[in-house]
Amino acid sequence: SKEKYQGNDFAGVVTGLAWTAVGGEILYVETSLSKGKGALTLTGNLGDVMKESAMLAHEYLKSHAEQLELKPEVFNNWNVHIHVPEGAIPKDGPSAGVTMVTSLASAFTQRKVKKNLAMTGEITLRGKVLPVGGIKEKILAAKRAGITEIILSEDNKKNLEEIKNIYLKGLKFHFVKTIMDVLDIALLKTKVEKPVLVN
Amino acid sequence: SKEKYQGNDFAGVVTGLAWTAVGGEILYVETSLSKGKGALTLTGNLGDVMKESAMLAHEYLKSHAEQLELKPEVFNNWNVHIHVPEGAIPKDGPSAGVTMVTSLASAFTQRKVKKNLAMTGEITLRGKVLPVGGIKEKILAAKRAGITEIILSEDNKKNLEEIKNIYLKGLKFHFVKTIMDVLDIALLKTKVEKPVLVN
Amino acid sequence: SKEKYQGNDFAGVVTGLAWTAVGGEILYVETSLSKGKGALTLTGNLGDVMKESAMLAHEYLKSHAEQLELKPEVFNNWNVHIHVPEGAIPKDGPSAGVTMVTSLASAFTQRKVKKNLAMTGEITLRGKVLPVGGIKEKILAAKRAGITEIILSEDNKKNLEEIKNIYLKGLKFHFVKTIMDVLDIALLKTKVEKPVLVN
Amino acid sequence: SKEKYQGNDFAGVVTGLAWTAVGGEILYVETSLSKGKGALTLTGNLGDVMKESAMLAHEYLKSHAEQLELKPEVFNNWNVHIHVPEGAIPKDGPSAGVTMVTSLASAFTQRKVKKNLAMTGEITLRGKVLPVGGIKEKILAAKRAGITEIILSEDNKKNLEEIKNIYLKGLKFHFVKTIMDVLDIALLKTKVEKPVLVN
Amino acid sequence: SKEKYQGNDFAGVVTGLAWTAVGGEILYVETSLSKGKGALTLTGNLGDVMKESAMLAHEYLKSHAEQLELKPEVFNNWNVHIHVPEGAIPKDGPSAGVTMVTSLASAFTQRKVKKNLAMTGEITLRGKVLPVGGIKEKILAAKRAGITEIILSEDNKKNLEEIKNIYLKGLKFHFVKTIMDVLDIALLKTKVEKPVLVN
Amino acid sequence: SKEKYQGNDFAGVVTGLAWTAVGGEILYVETSLSKGKGALTLTGNLGDVMKESAMLAHEYLKSHAEQLELKPEVFNNWNVHIHVPEGAIPKDGPSAGVTMVTSLASAFTQRKVKKNLAMTGEITLRGKVLPVGGIKEKILAAKRAGITEIILSEDNKKNLEEIKNIYLKGLKFHFVKTIMDVLDIALLKTKVEKPVLVN
Ligand SMILES: [Ca+2]
Ligand SMILES: [Ca+2]
Ligand SMILES: [Ca+2]
Ligand SMILES: [Ca+2]
Ligand SMILES: [Ca+2]
Ligand SMILES: [Ca+2]
Ligand SMILES: [Ca+2]
Ligand SMILES: [Ca+2]
Ligand SMILES: [Ca+2]
Ligand SMILES: [Ca+2]
Ligand SMILES: [Ca+2]
Ligand SMILES: [Ca+2]
Repeated sequence: SKEKYQGNDFAGVVTGLAWTAVGGEILYVETSLSKGKGALTLTGNLGDVMKESAMLAHEYLKSHAEQLELKPEVFNNWNVHIHVPEGAIPKDGPSAGVTMVTSLASAFTQRKVKKNLAMTGEITLRGKVLPVGGIKEKILAAKRAGITEIILSEDNKKNLEEIKNIYLKGLKFHFVKTIMDVLDIALLKTKVEKPVLVN
Repeated sequence: SKEKYQGNDFAGVVTGLAWTAVGGEILYVETSLSKGKGALTLTGNLGDVMKESAMLAHEYLKSHAEQLELKPEVFNNWNVHIHVPEGAIPKDGPSAGVTMVTSLASAFTQRKVKKNLAMTGEITLRGKVLPVGGIKEKILAAKRAGITEIILSEDNKKNLEEIKNIYLKGLKFHFVKTIMDVLDIALLKTKVEKPVLVN
Repeated sequence: SKEKYQGNDFAGVVTGLAWTAVGGEILYVETSLSKGKGALTLTGNLGDVMKESAMLAHEYLKSHAEQLELKPEVFNNWNVHIHVPEGAIPKDGPSAGVTMVTSLASAFTQRKVKKNLAMTGEITLRGKVLPVGGIKEKILAAKRAGITEIILSEDNKKNLEEIKNIYLKGLKFHFVKTIMDVLDIALLKTKVEKPVLVN
Repeated sequence: SKEKYQGNDFAGVVTGLAWTAVGGEILYVETSLSKGKGALTLTGNLGDVMKESAMLAHEYLKSHAEQLELKPEVFNNWNVHIHVPEGAIPKDGPSAGVTMVTSLASAFTQRKVKKNLAMTGEITLRGKVLPVGGIKEKILAAKRAGITEIILSEDNKKNLEEIKNIYLKGLKFHFVKTIMDVLDIALLKTKVEKPVLVN
Repeated sequence: SKEKYQGNDFAGVVTGLAWTAVGGEILYVETSLSKGKGALTLTGNLGDVMKESAMLAHEYLKSHAEQLELKPEVFNNWNVHIHVPEGAIPKDGPSAGVTMVTSLASAFTQRKVKKNLAMTGEITLRGKVLPVGGIKEKILAAKRAGITEIILSEDNKKNLEEIKNIYLKGLKFHFVKTIMDVLDIALLKTKVEKPVLVN
Repeated sequence: SKEKYQGNDFAGVVTGLAWTAVGGEILYVETSLSKGKGALTLTGNLGDVMKESAMLAHEYLKSHAEQLELKPEVFNNWNVHIHVPEGAIPKDGPSAGVTMVTSLASAFTQRKVKKNLAMTGEITLRGKVLPVGGIKEKILAAKRAGITEIILSEDNKKNLEEIKNIYLKGLKFHFVKTIMDVLDIALLKTKVEKPVLVN
């Protein structure tokens, strides 16, 4: 079912863009934290490559805790559960990397995610954002869902040329090189209401 | 075999609605707690997606303990075993999500589940209730089994239009957006007889 | 090979009824306890559904220890090994549930099992006994083996109507609703000779 | 390759009888102990049913330690490694049960195994010895290898009738009902040279 | 997509050479360390043989810590995560061995990797560098990407003879026998900016 | 690629003989030790039977530590990594048993392995050396590689008769019955240069 963007009230909920045989679609990545020893649980019918994206996101934040003003210990003191609805649909591929790392960063900092923003891009362990496929379909889906800003890898800039201007109207694009670029754009300074104390 | 609704004497036993090739059916989700370290055991010939629903339900309650007036520690001090009879029948899909989270919440609070109530709906980690398929068949099955109230996702409301009024007669519907909506409707304030002391 | 009933000298050895393509047969469920941390080991070429029956039986007794006058700690202090001979024959399905829970209960209480008794029925986590298939073949097999009393789910009562009276002669049936019904019938008050001290 | 019986110098080495498409053969079960926490390691290209035989043998001895004048703690203080040469040949089935339990008992007691003795039979958790197939082929193989005494399940006695007397000449048979019968026959009172101190 | 060499700013990022059906390509091996107990995590859609290369690299450095002026304890105090982008492409084979051991050594020492350098070669546990296939295609890819120095096994020297001189122009080759030869060439004495304190 | 024998400078590196569809070949077994709790890691694309050989070798040495003048504790204080290059080639079968046990013994004792020596043979847990296949091809390969002494199972002696004398010229054979025979021949009294202190 085609979904509408649903706001930014929750820490750890980030809008991604997926691409299937039947077109683009928005999807949500949800992160929930619970006291523990740093375990990572992944649900939502995820394939191995998508699970690796979550592992990369977790590891990247662990080794860049200070840049997000997080104590490194939080990653050992909290279990992370990442879920991608809808459970009946198998999902795979590396393109949710940026969405996952933003979801995790929002959950750990309890900072709000920018409104009406969606994103797609592979991440690497050193923090690069790599280009992904299906850009045209993803943009159309984002627009349909009410998204107004989109984060893409700089190396996906060229893919916009093949899209008619009319489809791009009303959309603001952010082209990024690194995970830190993504987080700078996506995470607001303000925290969500009733933030959980993560430390 | 077509079953009848069997009352609400047990904490942790909740009536769900399933949909198979041969029609709708009610099914029970049963939760049993035992002292432990928070392990989750799942039986009843469950597929991976259905197992993920149970993980989501467990995680959701863990991070929303206070809303149910539960100490967060209980989730680390009790092992959870969820069973869905009948063992010979393979079961899968996300639609038992609401039934599982209600079963778990009833087991941990020892609150009774509302009588003659059945439910179906996918849950997500942030607490949304998503629509599911087979609504018509599930409603017919619920009625046959003696159910009088049904909880559905608000996004399944539209599916009722395609069902003749005669089949809906005598049924009360609750359309919900969130897990908390489900628990508000499904869990009574009264506890079961001889409640287990969960803390 | 067609077996004969072999007496009730051992705690934890209970006679079940199985049903295969070539007819009914009696089988034994054997439980052995050893000091440990509550691990459950299952042997006898068992399929996943039959293994789940053993998990259900173990969990049920754990959360109903007091009704059997057992200290709840015993389930954490003793490892359980359940075996179903014969090792070369694959076995599956939920119908050994009642046999397994009786075997475990006898092992933990060291109470003798009623003589010349066999049983078949699925169990659920809340303690219900569900009906199973192959009743006619199982009854014939029980008689051949020298069994004189049989425990069945109340919902299997109707299956006796299709069996000629001559086959039922000399057999006493117990129709049960719950696991506690089964244990009340199957476990004698007397303990086996030289009982193990389980605590 | 057809092997010859190789003496009884080693604790934990017992001669079994196997049966394959190309005839009977003797095989050795070897047990080695090393200080540890009671782990059980199985090698020799063994199938699941044969592995279960080893688990049954280990468990049986654990819960009958006193009858062998062993302290129950030894099973938690020593790791057990059971190997069945030759590694290139897959082996399966329950018929090595008696051989495995004798091998383990010899290793833990350091008692010598009776000379020129071979055996075959399934074991159960309560200590029964069940009949197995291929008796004729196994007996021929034993004789060829220089074996003079054979342990069989009492229920395999009838299989000797179909074997010509000339093949049975020079062989002494022991028909047993229980594991304890096997150990009484197979384990000598004398220990091996330079026994390991197992406690 | 054909990539360009991307500099040597990061500790633990090393340029390797891969060879697929569609030609040679450069790839990056990235290593990230985080406080832990020495666990090794591998991502990037890696096959079993490539995972074994990472295990060999880790083990080799562990047992040759002193030669790199590392305390042996660091391998037990830090978890290692090795990633090979791009996640959508399955990768396998032993030829990334030298790249992995250099990546790990750079991460643990925080020493910079030589600029414009790429490498390919299998490693063994005793520290040998074995020859690999696809040398011609790999060299062409390296040149295209802006690489100017290449490390190969001495046993791959002969493969250069079959390549036209024009393709080799502007490339400097290092033929090595051992892992230590590789590290001597690839690791600079200078550390990266803001090195992590690994001890 | 056809390899040449490469000397005996390293503790834990032993030359074995393998046999494939395309003829015989020498291969190396390499063992590396690192401080730990006795874990056994196996790499080199090894099949299950070859992995079992390594487990047998490890277990055998553990229970015969004193004969090698090793403290039994060393096996619990050191992790063992065994690798068989080349990683791209799948390897299986029991015939590397003698090579593995010699590699392990050399690593733990730091004693040099006899020069120009190769070996092939299956081992058992009680220390026997069993015959293996492909003797002719293995001998030819050994000679080609510069090997001058070969260890074989006594039961492989007969296989030499079918080989023309010209191929055996310049080769010295050692026919062994036990693992201890192998180690007596293969391990020199002198230690490698800069031996690791294993205790
Ligand atoms: Ca959707
Ligand atoms: Ca995305
Ligand atoms: Ca995406
Ligand atoms: Ca039903
Ligand atoms: Ca449901
Ligand atoms: Ca039978
Ligand atoms: Ca039964
Ligand atoms: Ca043989
Ligand atoms: Ca046998
Ligand atoms: Ca690429
Ligand atoms: Ca080779
Ligand atoms: Ca070999």
